[in-house]
Amino acid sequence: MLNFASDYLEGCHGAVLDALIRTNLVQAAPYGADEFSESARGKIRAACQSPKADIYFLTGGTQTNQLVISTMLAPYEGVIAADTGHVSGHEAGAIEFSGHKVLTLPGREGKLEAAGVDAFIRSFYADGNHEHMVFPGMVYISHPTEYGTLYTAGELESLNRVCREHHIPLFLDGARLGYGLQAMGADVTLPLIAQMCDVFYIGGTKVGALCGEALVFPQGNAPSHFTTRIKQHGALSAKGRTVGVQFDALFTDGLYETISAHAIAMAEKLKEALRRAQLPFFLETPTNQQFVVLENGYMERLKEKVGFSFWEAYDESHTVVRFATSWATTPEAIDTLGKILLETK
Amino acid sequence: MLNFASDYLEGCHGAVLDALIRTNLVQAAPYGADEFSESARGKIRAACQSPKADIYFLTGGTQTNQLVISTMLAPYEGVIAADTGHVSGHEAGAIEFSGHKVLTLPGREGKLEAAGVDAFIRSFYADGNHEHMVFPGMVYISHPTEYGTLYTAGELESLNRVCREHHIPLFLDGARLGYGLQAMGADVTLPLIAQMCDVFYIGGTKVGALCGEALVFPQGNAPSHFTTRIKQHGALSAKGRTVGVQFDALFTDGLYETISAHAIAMAEKLKEALRRAQLPFFLETPTNQQFVVLENGYMERLKEKVGFSFWEAYDESHTVVRFATSWATTPEAIDTLGKILLETK
Amino acid sequence: MLNFASDYLEGCHGAVLDALIRTNLVQAAPYGADEFSESARGKIRAACQSPKADIYFLTGGTQTNQLVISTMLAPYEGVIAADTGHVSGHEAGAIEFSGHKVLTLPGREGKLEAAGVDAFIRSFYADGNHEHMVFPGMVYISHPTEYGTLYTAGELESLNRVCREHHIPLFLDGARLGYGLQAMGADVTLPLIAQMCDVFYIGGTKVGALCGEALVFPQGNAPSHFTTRIKQHGALSAKGRTVGVQFDALFTDGLYETISAHAIAMAEKLKEALRRAQLPFFLETPTNQQFVVLENGYMERLKEKVGFSFWEAYDESHTVVRFATSWATTPEAIDTLGKILLETK
Amino acid sequence: MLNFASDYLEGCHGAVLDALIRTNLVQAAPYGADEFSESARGKIRAACQSPKADIYFLTGGTQTNQLVISTMLAPYEGVIAADTGHVSGHEAGAIEFSGHKVLTLPGREGKLEAAGVDAFIRSFYADGNHEHMVFPGMVYISHPTEYGTLYTAGELESLNRVCREHHIPLFLDGARLGYGLQAMGADVTLPLIAQMCDVFYIGGTKVGALCGEALVFPQGNAPSHFTTRIKQHGALSAKGRTVGVQFDALFTDGLYETISAHAIAMAEKLKEALRRAQLPFFLETPTNQQFVVLENGYMERLKEKVGFSFWEAYDESHTVVRFATSWATTPEAIDTLGKILLETK
Repeated sequence: MLNFASDYLEGCHGAVLDALIRTNLVQAAPYGADEFSESARGKIRAACQSPKADIYFLTGGTQTNQLVISTMLAPYEGVIAADTGHVSGHEAGAIEFSGHKVLTLPGREGKLEAAGVDAFIRSFYADGNHEHMVFPGMVYISHPTEYGTLYTAGELESLNRVCREHHIPLFLDGARLGYGLQAMGADVTLPLIAQMCDVFYIGGTKVGALCGEALVFPQGNAPSHFTTRIKQHGALSAKGRTVGVQFDALFTDGLYETISAHAIAMAEKLKEALRRAQLPFFLETPTNQQFVVLENGYMERLKEKVGFSFWEAYDESHTVVRFATSWATTPEAIDTLGKILLETK
Repeated sequence: MLNFASDYLEGCHGAVLDALIRTNLVQAAPYGADEFSESARGKIRAACQSPKADIYFLTGGTQTNQLVISTMLAPYEGVIAADTGHVSGHEAGAIEFSGHKVLTLPGREGKLEAAGVDAFIRSFYADGNHEHMVFPGMVYISHPTEYGTLYTAGELESLNRVCREHHIPLFLDGARLGYGLQAMGADVTLPLIAQMCDVFYIGGTKVGALCGEALVFPQGNAPSHFTTRIKQHGALSAKGRTVGVQFDALFTDGLYETISAHAIAMAEKLKEALRRAQLPFFLETPTNQQFVVLENGYMERLKEKVGFSFWEAYDESHTVVRFATSWATTPEAIDTLGKILLETK
Repeated sequence: MLNFASDYLEGCHGAVLDALIRTNLVQAAPYGADEFSESARGKIRAACQSPKADIYFLTGGTQTNQLVISTMLAPYEGVIAADTGHVSGHEAGAIEFSGHKVLTLPGREGKLEAAGVDAFIRSFYADGNHEHMVFPGMVYISHPTEYGTLYTAGELESLNRVCREHHIPLFLDGARLGYGLQAMGADVTLPLIAQMCDVFYIGGTKVGALCGEALVFPQGNAPSHFTTRIKQHGALSAKGRTVGVQFDALFTDGLYETISAHAIAMAEKLKEALRRAQLPFFLETPTNQQFVVLENGYMERLKEKVGFSFWEAYDESHTVVRFATSWATTPEAIDTLGKILLETK
Repeated sequence: MLNFASDYLEGCHGAVLDALIRTNLVQAAPYGADEFSESARGKIRAACQSPKADIYFLTGGTQTNQLVISTMLAPYEGVIAADTGHVSGHEAGAIEFSGHKVLTLPGREGKLEAAGVDAFIRSFYADGNHEHMVFPGMVYISHPTEYGTLYTAGELESLNRVCREHHIPLFLDGARLGYGLQAMGADVTLPLIAQMCDVFYIGGTKVGALCGEALVFPQGNAPSHFTTRIKQHGALSAKGRTVGVQFDALFTDGLYETISAHAIAMAEKLKEALRRAQLPFFLETPTNQQFVVLENGYMERLKEKVGFSFWEAYDESHTVVRFATSWATTPEAIDTLGKILLETK
């Protein structure tokens, strides 16, 4: 059955697979000290224009978020995030499990606003009882957000300014970063992210890899003894090469960009199909995730013919659902989807 | 200087002090196994009409909240609380430090509504992604709340019903319980609390003791190896008698009730003084904490003559402040306060 | 350069790689609900003769150990392990990070003895102060151990008896399980392990997979809401298929057995080469890890020609080092090693 | 019945009680900001000759140990302690509960040796795999130890030297510090401790107070936001005065010294009584805890007439038990004990 439920339905891009095949029997050092990981680091540093960056390869997004937040916060600090942020509601309490509170602010279409963050921090320090409260110690954003929306360069710069002023780091969760970078009209680039954020990760699992995320500390500012900390979190791969080889391929000859751009082209085609079927968009997004509001009866009938994701209840008779494209989506699949959407009406 | 900043300004009630003096040189078993603690347990069981209750003595409120919540929740569960609940915002992240999320719902004057709790839990289980979220595992309420308000017997019964239905415990934080029980028109009694809640504590620190809280599991339902768990939290007193002796005194001859009733009488007199000075109440509360809105200039002048607590900013030129009475408040002090309030105008 | 430093130097076995290639573009459900993982579960259940087993796929050994131990222990319990156990000393405190103590007993060549475990638990309960101590809540063993040694069926049965008697689970860390099962004279089988242990994992990372471990609860006894708990630990893969596909291949047509048997044959050949070079064995091991004592000067010269692992200092002038074979070791490589060992003398 | 089971059998010393009575109705600021705590801090600073010391009052020893260790260690570090240290075995895993490993070394009569600590740290850094291990991040000693023994000034200086060299703090648990300072021949003084240790606490619960310990950071080196961290551990007292008043009394007119010296005089008398009864000492200790080896039959008969503590099994027919004196012990009680010891033979 046709499936648009997510962007992690297939294995990996062909060129990534080829790299795994090609390097398979080469003997390599363990725990991330291998030549493939080292080569991937060099390419990522170049792409970020961050020659001093510390780079670590991990296997999943929640793992990476937990690791970054718990190692960069002081014990008495929490992380500021949008109420719809992945760390706020969809990581099964992984942040609290590591001892920290998520300080949620109302998001606007999944985004935090610099002014709101600033006001929150100011009002924290103005509160006479703040010594009895959790200190704001970091700002977490996702780009694209959980709703597929994007920060503009100006918004990112404003968040950076607020963080600088209050001496706390800015962390960008880039689980779907490629799709954000290639979106129509996007003005945020990898070098800009590396300049504005204290730490961020480049998602692989949802952008062409079998598994893996590249965690970047652009100023060479990884917490001390970071390998030991990764191990302590149960997140250190003996065969670090497995992710390293994949990122080496993704950052060769602009592959990460090319496959992301393909997903965006497919998303534009998808939007057209959804529009033609007159399905109302829940919000506007320029990236690979599209959210539409379906009448529940229609949704049930559609479910039998095509895969998509439940997102949230809209009202008693309607539901918000997600259709996602990826590096693996074909134009033919979208054409077929377009027909199904209309036929099912 | 006259001081109404809180209900923990003095040492302990005279009868409690007498008990400490009287028992001082008696040799007693450590870690809560002493005769005084045992006697206090008997009296509390009687007052709660809970002959099977497990009772433990602890030294502070945040300590007790952290202990109860972290030992009664499964690791994948969080605690539901009002956004203004003590555990939500004013315990420096003690709950998250023990690994659990506080799932906040909007409070109404500090109170959780049963219908809101029920809707939250239902919508959690209806969410297709709930396996990736923190399970609601307990309901936390404070009585009186942080705003001095009270649940009615009917409201408590409704919360109990919701908790029963969803098979999660109801926990009542009674840091100021005495003042709630003796408030005018209050229909919630100790036996009712013991019937409706799975666990609660009777506050001593703010109600006549030097320090100490009595934690009650009314059905004898303390988590297994609870003494070991208290120790593990760093909360087990070698000299358990210190709190035991005090609760034994507080639950002898209705002392806890008498001194709480006195604080309520003083609160009624305080309300009159505040009304006479035409200070607008932030909300109506029948207990020992009174919240009024002061114009900032007036507040600054008043601050030089009498102690009270900053609560929260009201608007640019006004502030919410708290005046509290306690077992130790004298009518004369309130008379003097009344004069100062008027003179300072 | 020739390398015998570990059994995780290469990528994956050819048949595993073929499975990844073959399934690469099939769309599959996320988070372990995919058809490949389901198929692998069926094959592992059959191999273990445990039709009711709960099986989860994870990406690493420390991750799996931390997850199992922290979810199966009560908060007031610790895990009994040999002082040389992986969880005791070589996981960067991952167990303590999750809140639990490792209760170490002296190992005999890496192994725990049932009698010692029994005596430890009895003496714990006989200690009048045990309420102030960490309760023994689980027994952890590795098979093969960190020293390549193996439990006999009789020893495993004895450990099982002790655990049964004291009502605590027995956990077997099988990071290198295949090599243990195929060792000469080994009488422990997968069905026996499934019968004797409450939980164990079958290692993939070191036995033919790119990454991945199969965690087995043979009686269908996984802790409740286990997927949520995996997520909370940051250990849930969005693309669960990645490990599922690999285990499906490893448990097809006896591949796991075949490739393990190959490593053992290579180990026997390796032992011969080491013997011929008259290098004293640190201990006898029937599995793929061989430990010899090298004179430090010789060790330094050898290091320039072949890779091996530092294990521990032996005395001022000697060092214990490890040579490991794996599914990927060739007879030619060992022949060459044999020559180097002699030439370097 | 006569009781020598511990040094925390009675309430508090008369002068401490008087201070509580005298200050009882004075209104004081909460959370340790009161005048009594401030006065006590001044007196303790003087006694320690540490004018810059940060001082915090807490309610118990395990609480203080957990707080100090978990706030002064980096997440990837553990604390070095003697295997018989209180934090190693008798705090129900409170250290591990806060995420840290206790790295135990064999103690000599309860004491750590500087040379052993140095060798352990050196061998840690010499181990090629130490990145996968828990870093030694602090040294914990108790003085007197759990066996009543004492460090000499020279030994303390050696430990200080080792800690300085490896850049880790030295923490002294002084639950019974008074008894150590006043022991016959003791050459360790409060100012020396303040000079040699980075952090230590002065025990009150076992030395004259109802409850309470004074935590001292002699160089004003408390971890940042320490009040918030105390709160987060559930260890911040609303009525901080309760412990502050008691320490103010204990450090007035040399009371802490006087009452400790009394306990030591009583201990010398106790030793004589034990010697007269020809009970073999388990070890020599100059402080208030005396350990003797009793034949089990004799022990059972004695138990009916006098209280003492089980310590550990000695052999099949003998047990090590503890007799303790304190500030509250009378010469008459020891005379009576002497008679009972002889009569029971």
